Amino acid sequence: MGKKIKILDTTLRDGAQAQGISFSVEDKIKIVKALDEFGISYIEAGNPSSNPKDIEFFKRIKDLKLKNSVLTSFGSTRRPNMDVGSDAGIRSLLAAETGAVTIFGKSWDFHVENVLKTSLAENLNMIHDTIKFFRECGKEVIYDAEVFFEGYRDNRDYALKTLDAAMKAGADSICLCETTGYAFPDEIFEVTSEIVKRYGVEIGIHCHNDSGMAVAGTIMAVKAGATQVQGTFNGVGERCGNANLSIILPNLQLKMGCECILPEKMRTLTQVSRYMSEIANLAYDERIPYTGSCAFAHKAGMHADAINKNPKTFEHVDPGEVGNERVFLMSEVAGRSAVLGMINRVDPEITKDSPQTRLILEKLKEMEYLGYQYEGAESSFELMIRKVLGKYKEYFDLKEFKVIVSEPSINGGNSAAMIKIGVDSETEITAAEGNGPVNALDKAARKALERFYPQIRDIKLTDYKVRVIDSNSATAAKVRVLIESTDGKDVWTTIGVSADIIAASWKALVDSMEYKLMKDMRQ
Amino acid sequence: MGKKIKILDTTLRDGAQAQGISFSVEDKIKIVKALDEFGISYIEAGNPSSNPKDIEFFKRIKDLKLKNSVLTSFGSTRRPNMDVGSDAGIRSLLAAETGAVTIFGKSWDFHVENVLKTSLAENLNMIHDTIKFFRECGKEVIYDAEVFFEGYRDNRDYALKTLDAAMKAGADSICLCETTGYAFPDEIFEVTSEIVKRYGVEIGIHCHNDSGMAVAGTIMAVKAGATQVQGTFNGVGERCGNANLSIILPNLQLKMGCECILPEKMRTLTQVSRYMSEIANLAYDERIPYTGSCAFAHKAGMHADAINKNPKTFEHVDPGEVGNERVFLMSEVAGRSAVLGMINRVDPEITKDSPQTRLILEKLKEMEYLGYQYEGAESSFELMIRKVLGKYKEYFDLKEFKVIVSEPSINGGNSAAMIKIGVDSETEITAAEGNGPVNALDKAARKALERFYPQIRDIKLTDYKVRVIDSNSATAAKVRVLIESTDGKDVWTTIGVSADIIAASWKALVDSMEYKLMKDMRQ
Repeated sequence: MGKKIKILDTTLRDGAQAQGISFSVEDKIKIVKALDEFGISYIEAGNPSSNPKDIEFFKRIKDLKLKNSVLTSFGSTRRPNMDVGSDAGIRSLLAAETGAVTIFGKSWDFHVENVLKTSLAENLNMIHDTIKFFRECGKEVIYDAEVFFEGYRDNRDYALKTLDAAMKAGADSICLCETTGYAFPDEIFEVTSEIVKRYGVEIGIHCHNDSGMAVAGTIMAVKAGATQVQGTFNGVGERCGNANLSIILPNLQLKMGCECILPEKMRTLTQVSRYMSEIANLAYDERIPYTGSCAFAHKAGMHADAINKNPKTFEHVDPGEVGNERVFLMSEVAGRSAVLGMINRVDPEITKDSPQTRLILEKLKEMEYLGYQYEGAESSFELMIRKVLGKYKEYFDLKEFKVIVSEPSINGGNSAAMIKIGVDSETEITAAEGNGPVNALDKAARKALERFYPQIRDIKLTDYKVRVIDSNSATAAKVRVLIESTDGKDVWTTIGVSADIIAASWKALVDSMEYKLMKDMRQ
Repeated sequence: MGKKIKILDTTLRDGAQAQGISFSVEDKIKIVKALDEFGISYIEAGNPSSNPKDIEFFKRIKDLKLKNSVLTSFGSTRRPNMDVGSDAGIRSLLAAETGAVTIFGKSWDFHVENVLKTSLAENLNMIHDTIKFFRECGKEVIYDAEVFFEGYRDNRDYALKTLDAAMKAGADSICLCETTGYAFPDEIFEVTSEIVKRYGVEIGIHCHNDSGMAVAGTIMAVKAGATQVQGTFNGVGERCGNANLSIILPNLQLKMGCECILPEKMRTLTQVSRYMSEIANLAYDERIPYTGSCAFAHKAGMHADAINKNPKTFEHVDPGEVGNERVFLMSEVAGRSAVLGMINRVDPEITKDSPQTRLILEKLKEMEYLGYQYEGAESSFELMIRKVLGKYKEYFDLKEFKVIVSEPSINGGNSAAMIKIGVDSETEITAAEGNGPVNALDKAARKALERFYPQIRDIKLTDYKVRVIDSNSATAAKVRVLIESTDGKDVWTTIGVSADIIAASWKALVDSMEYKLMKDMRQ
């Protein structure tokens, strides 16, 4: 393989500054374990003096033996006009007992004078003293040159002096931080090239995404000779986030031939990225390159057709290389061949030119015209196919329901539903209360069906989404309801459309229950 | 100002290929109006032969007079071995009667042989004949060179021949399409530079985001001499999306000094970006550069402190330049100045430090905790401010309502609502039927109020949107309802949140009616 690139993940430090993120100590330990297993070179774990959670974390993490990663704590240079050994921040960095420390210092004269409010000369001393102190304690020191690109742009000589001070003190590596997210990739390339030429140590790059180009800035810095890359999984971070490692890693390794992690680990990238997002409790961005569920999803008929001929026509990499999958979306713009895959799951004999394929495509167009959209509701699509093919057994039929919503509400729940269903020659009538009409109807329907199909009890609704379509006719507009269900083994999604949200929800609920019954029968 | 860059928005074509997006004809017309108002050079509106919705759209759009934009329809070169005038796709492009047409053709020999399954020579004829045909019909022709970068990488000579064919046929501009999202910004820069040097026409760039670098690729192409930029608002598009215009525009205009739109329009960027997202009914990505609510959000601590000393320390541009705002998270002063503008519309005497400002901010925090979000629902926000300030007269109060939804439905409408309201010492009880429970409740409430306030009759609900928040608790999750109303003179939007969609809708309906009554009183 090619050039070796060390990856520093700062999810636990810069990532924790993102809006809406708050890691518990347990979360942090889980993240360290996952990154170590994945093979990240450095895990930047936070500032050991910044809050009680971080203090506890550094205490507990000492017992953890890491296989692949070096843990690094993060802190600033010593305070102005103070002995380095007396600075409480410096002492807590030492007490964290991590394999490496990341020290950040100011590169921009404007920041020195307006934020630190000290002299330019004293800032150089602060950088030098702090790094020298940790080197003498036997620590590996990564020096983060904060707001370096602004500094270089405004006062190149001074910015270089700050790096000279770090070098003289023995820094093991120097990371150029594009802190504000201002710089464009060509500027980052030029400046990094200069620095790589000037200094003999490992040069790193740390980009922010305020101009939407953090990934590109990082890539261009590596092309300029940087061999350390800082970023966060899924790009979490303050403001618009940090450079996204789950995009940078395959860009570097699969396209540029760099060596960042073991090749077999790259095949777990999608899984690791999703796990990190789960721990952060963030909704996963499905449009994210490489690891999102949309990343290899083809909708337009022409594209799907070409992919079937040869995936290379429209795919930049093989989805399997990053542990992701190719998906054909079911839609009116999707062609015959995209739909065929789903049909063949029901009946492998049917071909692209069978009359049944045409019937199903016509039904699909008709349903989409009514507002259905089967992308992401493949279970309803399968039921529809079965109905068209006559491969469907009716499990129950609805005789009647009534839902009553009252204001003021009685005893908290404001809705009640009565339902009557038929199974073969028998009927069942029952009722339930709920928080909102859909909740009441869901409960009543399951109660009625349990007598005939006890496995209905295993269904748990895990997601419920509502979209208004053609919203210009206001409260009489159509709504599209998507319901995600699970029975602990499988997850399936179903859809319902109607001018009435209750009726739309009912259709999606029916599909969910029918899918469960059909699935169990098949097994 | 600097170099003039023409912007082509393809939200309605490439954007519509995104997973989960399905624009109605009304949506499409709204988008065209918004982009025209914003000052986008070209609006690529879809393929007029691809489905019934697009056919209807092109029929209706003919009556719309655009002030700033040229509408362009999109289609492929003629089919192999066929006369151009006999091709149904070509004929429907002509029948769309748009000011310009975008014709896409194949640049990559691999695609010609494996997707089109025709000869390399015939592909050149197809490009030439199609462009020549439209030029002879007097159309402006934008030639989209599909998968150009793969073509140039694999068989440079042939890729150039395809452009030669387009040039010879008289194409007004040539757009280099990075269709698969494979290429890195440095490659895009080099190739674009070559093409700009070789041909004398306007060169465009069209990037996809599969490597997470669509914005950077676009910027580097402009640096190489491209003067036409294709992309979509908020980056919607197939797979990982297209180059995001709401990031590219400020990068080009504010940082590179290019001229894309009128400077005063740049200050509406945040608003336009959010509006486009609303129409697509997508959850807005708040971490998006420039326009997201996180883009200028500083978490308490060193950064917020430095920003207070001088915003230049950590902000790459002034948020006001793109119509966004600076936010300090978890801070007493959060939002104070932002909210003040709205407070002063109700009471111009109140200042940033008045005790009422603090009360309103506290109420705002409480409501946001409950799931309210007043962006885009300023009328509900104004009502809330009035209630806190005691500047609100109660027009009516709800005594009771009951909504009954029945299946099977009786005479079409499946819902009936009974409502009892009080105005001063009088009460009114009435009922109405509707298509769905919200529609029935809306009708009943207006019927009851008309006796006291005849102007209620003038209200027309023009939009109704539902979002599920915290969707993990499934059918008992909270929903946020937004209602847009008009009385022919003004348009206002109100919000309601509840675990029950009927109750949430009711709150938004009440705000809508109260706002109308208050507004009329004020006038």
